[in-house]
Amino acid sequence: MNTFLPVTQIQIPSGFIDLGIGDPQLSLLPIELIRQGAENCFAQNDLSFLQYGAEQGNGYFRLALAKFLSAGYGSPVEPESLFVTSGVSSGLDLICTLFTQPGDTIFVEEPTYFLALRIFADHGLRLVPIPTDEEGLVLDALEEKLAEIRPKFLYLIPAFQNPSGHTLTQERRERLVELCQERDFLIVADEVYHFLNYSLQPPKAFAAYSGVRNVISLGSFSKILAPGLRLGWMQAELSRIEHLVTCGLLDSGGGMNPFTSAIVRGIIENGELEKHILSLKTTYSARLATMDAALRRYLPGARYTIPQGGYFFWLRLPRDADAEELLTKANEFKVSFRPGIRFSSQGGLRQYVRLSFSFYESQEIEEGVKRLRQTLEKKVTWYNPHL
Amino acid sequence: MNTFLPVTQIQIPSGFIDLGIGDPQLSLLPIELIRQGAENCFAQNDLSFLQYGAEQGNGYFRLALAKFLSAGYGSPVEPESLFVTSGVSSGLDLICTLFTQPGDTIFVEEPTYFLALRIFADHGLRLVPIPTDEEGLVLDALEEKLAEIRPKFLYLIPAFQNPSGHTLTQERRERLVELCQERDFLIVADEVYHFLNYSLQPPKAFAAYSGVRNVISLGSFSKILAPGLRLGWMQAELSRIEHLVTCGLLDSGGGMNPFTSAIVRGIIENGELEKHILSLKTTYSARLATMDAALRRYLPGARYTIPQGGYFFWLRLPRDADAEELLTKANEFKVSFRPGIRFSSQGGLRQYVRLSFSFYESQEIEEGVKRLRQTLEKKVTWYNPHL
Repeated sequence: MNTFLPVTQIQIPSGFIDLGIGDPQLSLLPIELIRQGAENCFAQNDLSFLQYGAEQGNGYFRLALAKFLSAGYGSPVEPESLFVTSGVSSGLDLICTLFTQPGDTIFVEEPTYFLALRIFADHGLRLVPIPTDEEGLVLDALEEKLAEIRPKFLYLIPAFQNPSGHTLTQERRERLVELCQERDFLIVADEVYHFLNYSLQPPKAFAAYSGVRNVISLGSFSKILAPGLRLGWMQAELSRIEHLVTCGLLDSGGGMNPFTSAIVRGIIENGELEKHILSLKTTYSARLATMDAALRRYLPGARYTIPQGGYFFWLRLPRDADAEELLTKANEFKVSFRPGIRFSSQGGLRQYVRLSFSFYESQEIEEGVKRLRQTLEKKVTWYNPHL
Repeated sequence: MNTFLPVTQIQIPSGFIDLGIGDPQLSLLPIELIRQGAENCFAQNDLSFLQYGAEQGNGYFRLALAKFLSAGYGSPVEPESLFVTSGVSSGLDLICTLFTQPGDTIFVEEPTYFLALRIFADHGLRLVPIPTDEEGLVLDALEEKLAEIRPKFLYLIPAFQNPSGHTLTQERRERLVELCQERDFLIVADEVYHFLNYSLQPPKAFAAYSGVRNVISLGSFSKILAPGLRLGWMQAELSRIEHLVTCGLLDSGGGMNPFTSAIVRGIIENGELEKHILSLKTTYSARLATMDAALRRYLPGARYTIPQGGYFFWLRLPRDADAEELLTKANEFKVSFRPGIRFSSQGGLRQYVRLSFSFYESQEIEEGVKRLRQTLEKKVTWYNPHL
């Protein structure tokens, strides 16, 4: 059998360092915790986690998750406000199915998470980009657009944004929550990096505003436990939860991941999830520092803000080089990255690249940045009249 | 904490027998097989099943599934033609997102699976019912409708249909495959009961025609292993698979259930799935015989065809009683069922009920049918002039 049988989503050619990958490193996935969580489930002799699950998600899992989130956010979360998903992508997909029609307009940050753009495209949505700065979404620009058109929703990543790393300030969050009520549009806040904070305690999560009918917060275990579990959650106002819970997909298939949520429930209840997140933060902080040092050393002409959480550096290339041109040359040096244009809903951001420090250890991060420098130098030689 | 914390999708009031439930009985879920499958995964020290999975599904899982299906269907299945889903419901949802627009027309069987109707409704689809008889979909009626309108797809359950129990004949299958090419519409075949055959070897599965671009076959582990795993598959022509695999939802979240598919892979590879299905068939055959005997004894006026596979009896009530009226009275006798109207896309089938023999053991099945008789008798007294 010569068939190619991929197991994981991304395969990296041997010897390559792809600094674009926004996945956790395999060795950071806590297999022993998950093995123990599974073993506990099987030992209980209660088979209900193998049955069609409650549409909103296993009640005891939501209770455990609510306690975890209450501690993490520093504000109370009720299990009734939580809805279990198969991850943020499935949550976004469901929101699009239930709350939009093809041709509807939504607002997205510029830059934004390029794979969310793909989900929105599958639902035929029209995207209007709203500029961002170092404090996140620019509200004046948002208000200008709101004067022209009311979007079905605004999709944003408020903490340690993908790709920019920026965090929306507390002041802007509050104004945004006012605006979504005044102008009646939905805020869909993808808060997947909220708990991966290193040098900044992020402002109040949008989850804390989810008593407001127009605010939905999305969370996930992909970044804080393991992506393969396909487990996440939404937090929303009760009538919104009711709408989600009674939809056809759930009525038919039952809750989204009864088996994996039963496994994760134990990991939360025994406090291991919190410990694991602390250990991830230590690891990622060190890698972030390494990447920062390597960038200063090898790419002093690149401009960026040091991220304070999450997975990503967002660089403006030295001499405003074109990232897509650079990418074709990077192959030769066995290095890769994600060009900025992929994060633009309007084909812009060509001088930017996203680098991730989640997937590699410090030594490879340094080597990867060094190879980026070689790639840039190779390019530059063509323009250097002295050679 | 007084909060109600449901774990499973259906909660049955104490003492009740709900013969409407189309779930497998908890005790039929093979926890030991799944525990062993999980243990094997954890023992391999390969963490890739915890990572974002390949969009099409784990390649080795697809290879194992292809071998299992090749044996089961008696015709070769290639791993390239398989796409891993989170179950039939998620597959239907994805098909609606990618291949339809709100306002599009689709054809469904009358009667059909009521929860699929809910998914179609969420996608804003217009439903046109096509009548069925004991040989499945009535093709003359289909051709008449096709002369008026081309549907985006025809949704059907070709083997041991839910709720009717009927199986589409080989002859009709072949003509249907011709028609979908002549008139260019998609066949979405929900083949979830295909392997639960008791007294009839079903005709060639639509999976066997999935080399035809307009045929998609949906399968699931919910009925042959455990619903809580949220694991199923689609089989389709390669360009169709390519469309599914490159959609936004998968590009973002990766393959649909890498963790549970790695667990199930081992259960297939060691032959335990086949053995388990044989044991299910023995159990369900016995329950079917019990329900048939109980119906003959207690409800001799009910009309039905003895099902030859699947989960369901589809009864026409004695004296054409109204099933919804009966349902309100059934409460008093602590018995329940699904009234026919729920399986109609046009509010018909009021004299029918669906009974399932998957969820209860023989003794309860008999007791449940006896209670149905009591319910019917109570109703009849009102009309009996001699009392």
